[in-house]
Amino acid sequence: MSKRIIVDYTNCMDTTLKLNGISKKKLSDLGSALQQAQKEVNHKKQAGQLGFMELPYKTSEAKDIMKLATRLKGKYDNFVVLGIGGSALGNICLQNSINHLYYNLLPKNKRRGFPRIFVLDNVDADMVKGLMDVIDVKKTLFNVITKSGTTSETMSQYFIFRKELEKRLGQKYRRNIIATTDIDKGYLRELADKERYTTLVVPKNVGGRFSVLSPVGLLSAAFGGIDIEQLLAGARYMDSLCQTNNMSKNPAMIYAALQYLMYKQGKTISVMMPYAQHLKEFADWYAQLWAESLGKAVNNKGKRVNVGPTPVKTLGATDQHSQVQLYMEGPFDKVVTILSVEKLAATLTIPSYNTHFLGGQTMNKLLLTEEKATTMALAQNNRPNLTITLPEINEFNLGQMIYLFELATAYMGELLEINTFDQPGVELGKILTYALMGRPGFEKKRKEIEKQLRKKGKFIV
Amino acid sequence: MSKRIIVDYTNCMDTTLKLNGISKKKLSDLGSALQQAQKEVNHKKQAGQLGFMELPYKTSEAKDIMKLATRLKGKYDNFVVLGIGGSALGNICLQNSINHLYYNLLPKNKRRGFPRIFVLDNVDADMVKGLMDVIDVKKTLFNVITKSGTTSETMSQYFIFRKELEKRLGQKYRRNIIATTDIDKGYLRELADKERYTTLVVPKNVGGRFSVLSPVGLLSAAFGGIDIEQLLAGARYMDSLCQTNNMSKNPAMIYAALQYLMYKQGKTISVMMPYAQHLKEFADWYAQLWAESLGKAVNNKGKRVNVGPTPVKTLGATDQHSQVQLYMEGPFDKVVTILSVEKLAATLTIPSYNTHFLGGQTMNKLLLTEEKATTMALAQNNRPNLTITLPEINEFNLGQMIYLFELATAYMGELLEINTFDQPGVELGKILTYALMGRPGFEKKRKEIEKQLRKKGKFIV
Repeated sequence: MSKRIIVDYTNCMDTTLKLNGISKKKLSDLGSALQQAQKEVNHKKQAGQLGFMELPYKTSEAKDIMKLATRLKGKYDNFVVLGIGGSALGNICLQNSINHLYYNLLPKNKRRGFPRIFVLDNVDADMVKGLMDVIDVKKTLFNVITKSGTTSETMSQYFIFRKELEKRLGQKYRRNIIATTDIDKGYLRELADKERYTTLVVPKNVGGRFSVLSPVGLLSAAFGGIDIEQLLAGARYMDSLCQTNNMSKNPAMIYAALQYLMYKQGKTISVMMPYAQHLKEFADWYAQLWAESLGKAVNNKGKRVNVGPTPVKTLGATDQHSQVQLYMEGPFDKVVTILSVEKLAATLTIPSYNTHFLGGQTMNKLLLTEEKATTMALAQNNRPNLTITLPEINEFNLGQMIYLFELATAYMGELLEINTFDQPGVELGKILTYALMGRPGFEKKRKEIEKQLRKKGKFIV
Repeated sequence: MSKRIIVDYTNCMDTTLKLNGISKKKLSDLGSALQQAQKEVNHKKQAGQLGFMELPYKTSEAKDIMKLATRLKGKYDNFVVLGIGGSALGNICLQNSINHLYYNLLPKNKRRGFPRIFVLDNVDADMVKGLMDVIDVKKTLFNVITKSGTTSETMSQYFIFRKELEKRLGQKYRRNIIATTDIDKGYLRELADKERYTTLVVPKNVGGRFSVLSPVGLLSAAFGGIDIEQLLAGARYMDSLCQTNNMSKNPAMIYAALQYLMYKQGKTISVMMPYAQHLKEFADWYAQLWAESLGKAVNNKGKRVNVGPTPVKTLGATDQHSQVQLYMEGPFDKVVTILSVEKLAATLTIPSYNTHFLGGQTMNKLLLTEEKATTMALAQNNRPNLTITLPEINEFNLGQMIYLFELATAYMGELLEINTFDQPGVELGKILTYALMGRPGFEKKRKEIEKQLRKKGKFIV
């Protein structure tokens, strides 16, 4: 069994597809642009702008986090992440990928003494109240994560649980909170220092959606018993594979190249379809990374481009019975990335029953066969698809996967000539929220909005 | 508080949007086509082809299912659905919408004595084995659901659990299985009759993705303590609202009209974004309904059209920090449907902390404000969006929602002039799976595939 993940893009090429395939020439013609992209990315890294590329090498920080988790694990029944977006999706992905699929339902001994893990990534009162029904806050460690310290969703959750903890534990409540935020700036940093919480640091040069291998993602992982040092080792291994400027040997380059060429020929929807329940949330993590990094109004020259592929998260074999009809017969606007796992942890044999053809075969073979059948059928219908295969699901391979897609995103951003690392499009919504919620300094905006709302005619059924 | 759900499409119209809006004229010009679509749908209903339109009126069947669940509920700790696609998504949606968001973690008394509910919708050995770790199969009722009785995924799960049950319970194992299938046809029907299981019937004229209000969806709902009679009552109420042929008063017609006009002007991606954790899985249910019904290669005249909007499921406020950057700034290829809930079950006040502006306000207000801010910001960026508001989340309103979208799908299919109710595109994948798994009768196909696989050059990194 290879320790390397493999990218097979045979079903993207015109040697397989009669229509919509890419020629070898077209791909190799993109080589110099990709080498340029790699140079740009490395240049930004040298300039200290791309913190995500440094994270795999912060091994002593990972050791410290492991120690912290080991020391505290027996003291809490639950570990709750208060965070949203980049402060939640990586955490969810790591738990789902590595831990038991019904982890929170296992008794404590089956969790090797580690606490149950919850990620509270919405400001829905039914959800927050619901969580309170199933945890004892006294026995719960809350990890509040926001780099800026101003995220309304996270801070509102924090205020609610802080009060609950204080009510029950008095001044000892501090022990139940760990804050992950900027090293010296922002509201949460001030507050955490004043109230003397244990804190972890989000590096200044790491954005939310690239932060899973920073303390943002690593702390909850460590509390879930995940080997975070192996995660980083896998990311370093992928980094070493991606040093080459030979596109045909560089997994991140080839992924970016294929997605770019497909986008340019109208495949504007990038479907990710893992054939493994353990990778379901990986697709969700990817959806943020891809959408928020690459969906941009203007390019680096200030020209309006309104560019960006739309990621769609889906799941095999499940969504063969939901989305695949559309992928086979609908518009030719998609490229499908299949995530395949050679060997799951469990093996299950389907018992024989009379002469049913499934009897005696493994469920594992059925899943892999369905995957193979789907990729073949897509190809026969001239639907481009590629398969990324993990030998098995473990921390090392997941680290490889994370780093592969982060780097591919950075390359893709260079090809599209946009800023991969900002998110100006969400500012307006924040400003409107502040105005409507009465944040000081937004009074004028509020009056504007109210006037506007009064004016507008309504169309309602 | 109105008992009716409200569709507000102000932000789709050119009176609000400077670009990409629909004019009143364009909308009203579609009126006659929609009336024709309604006639066609009613005609098919009269001909007995559209069973989903009859389901809301099968009240005595619902009563029988309620009785069955009430009689058996104390006997089992767990209720497990073995099903995939249309036999799973509706079940998941109903549980997620109505029941506690951490339902399976609640102690039994907080579940009013009802069993925990699991829906096993994949053939992943880690998942199936994982489920075995957290349930005692002796105390578990399995509901195996497949209309045709040939679904490989479902039957393989069934064979595995049947064997487990037999091992532990001997011949009594029958009591732990309920089969939901065709009334007189198919492998599961034969088997169930032979083995004398309790059975429920999937009506012949109801397809998987339209089956949530049939025994397919109702049995697990009843075992989860959901008031299925109110579900049907809500669906009947929506049916009554949709009797009018006046588009501007018919919620299903207006939804289909807007989606159709948006699709025709290049908004080929239909995003559904509920602002409520309880409606997260509703978006997943919708994604199947919309994709599988409307993604078709040929139209009713046999012409190749490769048509179909791509549904994308997302979640507010969570995905403001993931997808909204793309929706605000990316290509103008989307129409966003916001699902809004006026009043959640819980209310949570954010405690005051120093002078933080969130202090003293409710989390409920924050969520509704973020939703409002998102729709306004989308509109200001000329991104069409509409909002469907439920007064609150309960069975009656969920029944309305389900029926609204089912009927809108049927209308949309008529506008696109395609067959809404078949799924020919998944056949090829099934045939390839059968061939590769060695199902008798597919030997020739297998040889073909093997030859093909040998021939093909590989592109691999």
